[in-house]
Amino acid sequence: MFEYNWQVRRDWLDWCKTVNEEELMKRRTGGIGFILPTLYHIVAVEYGWICGGIQERAVDIPPFGEVASLRQLTEFSASCHAELAPFVHDWNDSMDDRIMIDITDEGERVPHTYGEVMRHLIAHEIHHAGQLSVWSRELGKEPVTANLIGRGLFEMRV
Amino acid sequence: MFEYNWQVRRDWLDWCKTVNEEELMKRRTGGIGFILPTLYHIVAVEYGWICGGIQERAVDIPPFGEVASLRQLTEFSASCHAELAPFVHDWNDSMDDRIMIDITDEGERVPHTYGEVMRHLIAHEIHHAGQLSVWSRELGKEPVTANLIGRGLFEMRV
Repeated sequence: MFEYNWQVRRDWLDWCKTVNEEELMKRRTGGIGFILPTLYHIVAVEYGWICGGIQERAVDIPPFGEVASLRQLTEFSASCHAELAPFVHDWNDSMDDRIMIDITDEGERVPHTYGEVMRHLIAHEIHHAGQLSVWSRELGKEPVTANLIGRGLFEMRV
Repeated sequence: MFEYNWQVRRDWLDWCKTVNEEELMKRRTGGIGFILPTLYHIVAVEYGWICGGIQERAVDIPPFGEVASLRQLTEFSASCHAELAPFVHDWNDSMDDRIMIDITDEGERVPHTYGEVMRHLIAHEIHHAGQLSVWSRELGKEPVTANLIGRGLFEMRV
């Protein structure tokens, strides 16, 4: 389902090209409250949990202000994707029960299974894309399709 | 992830109790365009695909008008859940590649794997719940949390 989310994210980044950059940064109701920062948030959260959290790598996540244009955000998404995609592609169910330790903003150490983190990320991106779809209609524009079925992602393996 | 969606759906149905029924049926921008019909749509789609589509049972899905109150919709959701939950609970990965035939509104027969249908349903409900969260803020209300992590759904199996 990561592949599904990545396809949908690419579609949203393409959709953004058809919209005035001012609209992408206009205050909206709900969620993160802006279109471009929502896409930033999706990328940063996925990268932070997988590369920083699970892989325990020292990740350097730029603040939004440093990637605040559509071009920069698209590059940020692509570079995070390049770093974390191998982990996702190598995923197998035996990794579900492995434990990672999340260190919260309050310094608390909270254990999670890899499986819980990965499912959290899947739901997280779909949830925020649902919010984008409402804002898209507010702009009078057709939203990116959220349909998963028919993309051929989970086709018959003959 | 069905358990996650069912928890979130119950939370949204509870949230609806705190809202004027008029607001639940007020025209909104995006998605299905109304709060209560969105929840109906989520339930009907899940029930239709699993019981009607995969299980090939003769399902009788009431039109929205027949379950158009919060109480009726909550009962509709509960009765569909009771019918389809055993299938979901008995799910195992060997069922991923089984084929079901979807008959489209145009009468076309389209094959899908069970795995694709099930993932479609997971994404479908999360997407629409994301839309509900925007409408909730438009009403000035805190939305139901979409966080999957920390629910204990994918805990360590010791």
